[in-house]
Amino acid sequence: MLVLGVDPGLTRCGLGVVDGGPGRQTSLVEVGVLRTPATDDVASRLWALERGLGEWIDRHNPDAVAVERVFSQANVRTVMGTAQAGAVAIVTAARRGLPVALYTPSEVKAAVSGSGRADKAQVTFMVSRLLKLSDPPRPADAADALALALCHLSRGPALARMRAAVRQAPAVPGGSL
Amino acid sequence: MLVLGVDPGLTRCGLGVVDGGPGRQTSLVEVGVLRTPATDDVASRLWALERGLGEWIDRHNPDAVAVERVFSQANVRTVMGTAQAGAVAIVTAARRGLPVALYTPSEVKAAVSGSGRADKAQVTFMVSRLLKLSDPPRPADAADALALALCHLSRGPALARMRAAVRQAPAVPGGSL
Repeated sequence: MLVLGVDPGLTRCGLGVVDGGPGRQTSLVEVGVLRTPATDDVASRLWALERGLGEWIDRHNPDAVAVERVFSQANVRTVMGTAQAGAVAIVTAARRGLPVALYTPSEVKAAVSGSGRADKAQVTFMVSRLLKLSDPPRPADAADALALALCHLSRGPALARMRAAVRQAPAVPGGSL
Repeated sequence: MLVLGVDPGLTRCGLGVVDGGPGRQTSLVEVGVLRTPATDDVASRLWALERGLGEWIDRHNPDAVAVERVFSQANVRTVMGTAQAGAVAIVTAARRGLPVALYTPSEVKAAVSGSGRADKAQVTFMVSRLLKLSDPPRPADAADALALALCHLSRGPALARMRAAVRQAPAVPGGSL
């Protein structure tokens, strides 16, 4: 299973493709960062991001796309750009019929390090360890994108099983689900 | 000149197409609201919005698209949805090569009512008056979308002249601009 993780941002958008699945070594396929110039208008930046994301998706043809779920942050300006970039990532994947999963930063941190309050250094360390990388991925946005993909690989199968169980459960009043 | 105004939102996205230009009566072409069910996941909602917006753009072939610029609001959940829907509107227009203009709520209010602090009733009243509508557009998102289009019609030419002046100014050191 191939997962594309997206750490959305207008200035830097982290992208990481990870290959993995039950009983297999999880491995890095590609990691990188899309950048758009702050001097460009928002429309040009979002459109550049859409084209860049589309190229990554078309090149790797992932089975799923995992995008960071944006919540409130201290800096409202930053959170707007993150929400806009995230929306473009979501819609670029959805348009291609790909499943899109959203994870909060603490879900991602917990999935790779065991703690929802892990710091950036810890996340980068664990991403390198889980993917057996000799050098840590830089910048932090790239490491975060890989963490998102790893989070989906670790949680995806469990979620899929849960959803399948719900679908297969008898839809009768008083049923066990 | 045909302008599509977009008041972005996931639950209700207001759309309004207005025709106008120097020395002509400004008139309503179409107004409406796109809705996506809150029970759907964000990816489905953003994609539905993209398709709906694309249909409006393809049907009317506007010269420009005016989208509300999202700032911080009291409700962070709402602002996220607005930012995401706005990003989809921006990128849907940009992908078609259309100019996208962003206006703050107070710029829009000032353009149609003369006051940046006009309330919803005042904006709806002025939109109806400027477009000579016998009934006020409902819901408020539809009126806001028309106000955005009217704002662009009133400000667009001035902005275009300003940009042209900057482009035509001599690019020499010590020049007057």
